[in-house]
Amino acid sequence: MKLAVYPGSFDPLTNGHVDIIERGTHLFDKIIVAILVNVEKAPLFTMQERVEIVREVFKESPNVEVDVFDGLLVDYVTRRKADVIVRGLRALSDFEAEFQMALMNRRLGPKIETVFMMPAEQYTYISSRLIKEVFSLGGQVRGLVPAIVESRLKDKQLKKGNANVS
Amino acid sequence: MKLAVYPGSFDPLTNGHVDIIERGTHLFDKIIVAILVNVEKAPLFTMQERVEIVREVFKESPNVEVDVFDGLLVDYVTRRKADVIVRGLRALSDFEAEFQMALMNRRLGPKIETVFMMPAEQYTYISSRLIKEVFSLGGQVRGLVPAIVESRLKDKQLKKGNANVS
Amino acid sequence: MKLAVYPGSFDPLTNGHVDIIERGTHLFDKIIVAILVNVEKAPLFTMQERVEIVREVFKESPNVEVDVFDGLLVDYVTRRKADVIVRGLRALSDFEAEFQMALMNRRLGPKIETVFMMPAEQYTYISSRLIKEVFSLGGQVRGLVPAIVESRLKDKQLKKGNANVS
Amino acid sequence: MKLAVYPGSFDPLTNGHVDIIERGTHLFDKIIVAILVNVEKAPLFTMQERVEIVREVFKESPNVEVDVFDGLLVDYVTRRKADVIVRGLRALSDFEAEFQMALMNRRLGPKIETVFMMPAEQYTYISSRLIKEVFSLGGQVRGLVPAIVESRLKDKQLKKGNANVS
Amino acid sequence: MKLAVYPGSFDPLTNGHVDIIERGTHLFDKIIVAILVNVEKAPLFTMQERVEIVREVFKESPNVEVDVFDGLLVDYVTRRKADVIVRGLRALSDFEAEFQMALMNRRLGPKIETVFMMPAEQYTYISSRLIKEVFSLGGQVRGLVPAIVESRLKDKQLKKGNANVS
Amino acid sequence: MKLAVYPGSFDPLTNGHVDIIERGTHLFDKIIVAILVNVEKAPLFTMQERVEIVREVFKESPNVEVDVFDGLLVDYVTRRKADVIVRGLRALSDFEAEFQMALMNRRLGPKIETVFMMPAEQYTYISSRLIKEVFSLGGQVRGLVPAIVESRLKDKQLKKGNANVS
Repeated sequence: MKLAVYPGSFDPLTNGHVDIIERGTHLFDKIIVAILVNVEKAPLFTMQERVEIVREVFKESPNVEVDVFDGLLVDYVTRRKADVIVRGLRALSDFEAEFQMALMNRRLGPKIETVFMMPAEQYTYISSRLIKEVFSLGGQVRGLVPAIVESRLKDKQLKKGNANVS
Repeated sequence: MKLAVYPGSFDPLTNGHVDIIERGTHLFDKIIVAILVNVEKAPLFTMQERVEIVREVFKESPNVEVDVFDGLLVDYVTRRKADVIVRGLRALSDFEAEFQMALMNRRLGPKIETVFMMPAEQYTYISSRLIKEVFSLGGQVRGLVPAIVESRLKDKQLKKGNANVS
Repeated sequence: MKLAVYPGSFDPLTNGHVDIIERGTHLFDKIIVAILVNVEKAPLFTMQERVEIVREVFKESPNVEVDVFDGLLVDYVTRRKADVIVRGLRALSDFEAEFQMALMNRRLGPKIETVFMMPAEQYTYISSRLIKEVFSLGGQVRGLVPAIVESRLKDKQLKKGNANVS
Repeated sequence: MKLAVYPGSFDPLTNGHVDIIERGTHLFDKIIVAILVNVEKAPLFTMQERVEIVREVFKESPNVEVDVFDGLLVDYVTRRKADVIVRGLRALSDFEAEFQMALMNRRLGPKIETVFMMPAEQYTYISSRLIKEVFSLGGQVRGLVPAIVESRLKDKQLKKGNANVS
Repeated sequence: MKLAVYPGSFDPLTNGHVDIIERGTHLFDKIIVAILVNVEKAPLFTMQERVEIVREVFKESPNVEVDVFDGLLVDYVTRRKADVIVRGLRALSDFEAEFQMALMNRRLGPKIETVFMMPAEQYTYISSRLIKEVFSLGGQVRGLVPAIVESRLKDKQLKKGNANVS
Repeated sequence: MKLAVYPGSFDPLTNGHVDIIERGTHLFDKIIVAILVNVEKAPLFTMQERVEIVREVFKESPNVEVDVFDGLLVDYVTRRKADVIVRGLRALSDFEAEFQMALMNRRLGPKIETVFMMPAEQYTYISSRLIKEVFSLGGQVRGLVPAIVESRLKDKQLKKGNANVS
């Protein structure tokens, strides 16, 4: 049984992430979507919300698990007895940072392999950062994120709007 | 059981290829090293020699199989009932050609996934073409190719030398 | 009135080319699809066939013209009294060769501007070379080229097959 | 009549920007230099100053207009009834971010086209950020920015100096 | 006598830096390791510590000097009557920023040349930033930095730990 | 005394090459312009002509020497007791092939260092191949190559023309 970890911030989960996770389930027996506790950055969605979103989107997929981690990724992967780290490669600009990280991870955990997968080409230009930016400027994100993310983004906007007027 | 195909010309097999094959055996149940019958290019090693070399190097690895294919890669992968194509990414210059090919292959065979793996960093500058060029100019290739490839390269040189003097 | 030249080999015309030409007609008053007479390479389609294909595909578009040129592109553009060269940028690997060529063209014809346009993302992995390769190996090219190109590719294959058996 | 929007921060306008604007006037009937109201970053020049600088540099060019926008770029372009977004591509590092943004803009506003233009090669290494950094360290920026920008940079330095001693 | 300047933040010195400095001493009569006083970023190591570390590592190398500079690099290089700036190129992602900076420096100081050198391939994935990140998460950095850096990193951690419990 | 080798085909010498050679003479005591005997490609200029051109252009530069080599570059560099290989980096597309070659050369000759230098930005788009292509199509190459190269290109064209009519 091959167990894969797909790490990231998922703030929020995009259709590009969903595509990689689904593709990963065809190759590995189980995929753990491992959400990084990043203490430095101020996330838009809380860790709890991000866990709920992934759980909701993959509620029909028994071989997708959601988890949270902090510290070194290779320590987490080792602890979970996983075999492989899965990363999506959308574009060349991802490539070198991903390569550098993968080589460092190989040094820190030589038995753990990193594999890179490609999302469908219609998702190559989607990133969580761009989704948040477009949404905050009033742009349409339908089709770029799961329905639950679109709905939660609107909730946040509403609350923020209410906060502003109160 | 997950079956992977690692396609290429392998003219000759390098230590970079060997590294990717070994890494692949940790992730998949079986790796088929699929040597492309490329009718256009004049190879240095015959198909028979290339098959023998891979067989020799992996004679202790029951989950590495050698095979030969022509035609479309996705047709071969489908025929073999394999799940995934494995490709090594040494450097950025590989990246776009590999991406373009992988997207085309996904279109031609939507159920087949391509995963990219990194060889160890000491092999990033090795390619079959460079090996042949360096060897033909009298350079040392020990450590860059398996011992059997080094020995066969020397045999070829000797024969060629004899042909020249006769 | 702004006149644009879209130069290339178009051997054969792909849906990526068609997309760029259509986008160009929204920006410029007229687009000349200028097919390069490349004496060195052996094309699959004759110049006459390539002209017919472009003409057929754009028969309803009065502001798309087909022409043939040899010699320096900037001399042709000057002769045609055009203002701008249009080039499609599919991917980063196109980028530098295109840039180098555009800077040389600017030196040779300082009044002529080059603009780069992006095809729709589903065409980023299509090139004439790849189309020919996939087709020759028996792969499906429907959706990647105009219908007339698919039909003409099949005619060529049939003739070649007949030639082989005769 | 074709109307183009050239968006950016222009903090400050460089000779690279000036070059792209001039080239754009040869291709389109009018260029709107659209300065982004970026509430997050602390600009060196106020929006008012940036508008004055562009207006001064192009005071003899009736087909160059200066404007200010916030919100989504495609909403602004639609409101202005423009046809095309012009972007300068100085170098490969610009390429992917620009591509990603252009694909997102195409999704948000399918009728709006993005075209990329090259500045003259002597401007490829100029960016507003680098100009500010070099000037703040006492370096010479003559020839890299319009005269009015150089003069305003000196005014700012003087004021800051006075503030420091008072 | 040819004098070279190797500028950087060196926060901290890595084995990749050490490799470039040693290679530089084979090409130039003297290498000045010039540590940039970067007032904006909060460094992990004080300037004094960074100077001590370089001095300790190269205490047996009479042709390596450590110095500190602020302001424009070319002004510093001119003041030191040096001939050349040495920069390490680890990867393509370094390339364009380095090129842009080198072209700007050539404009600011036309007599000063920049040369690029490659570290050994095992150091291509090391950066000061990544070292700090891995160490702070509890990862092993032995072999990636000189022994004195590893030891000082541990001292810092200890102090921070004590501060936390006190 | 530091001796540098600048290897290449120089078919023909361009102003980009001249620029790198001149810059190299400021850094090293002597530069050997080492012309590769490439038996496979059909050069435009004979080896004798290429040697004469470099000699003519640098006749006033006592620290520029012209030489011819075949076989492995590192063997030649060792035989000449040189310390360093100089390579020009015009653009990113050069970068990876150059890097790969430099790493292989370092393996084959660990004591020989490769340094990369940048030509002036007006030469970034010049290559010997592009010069030959532009000239053969009737384009102006003045300012891109030394005067002697322009004159010899015209001689070749004249002879070819005469051959055609006879």
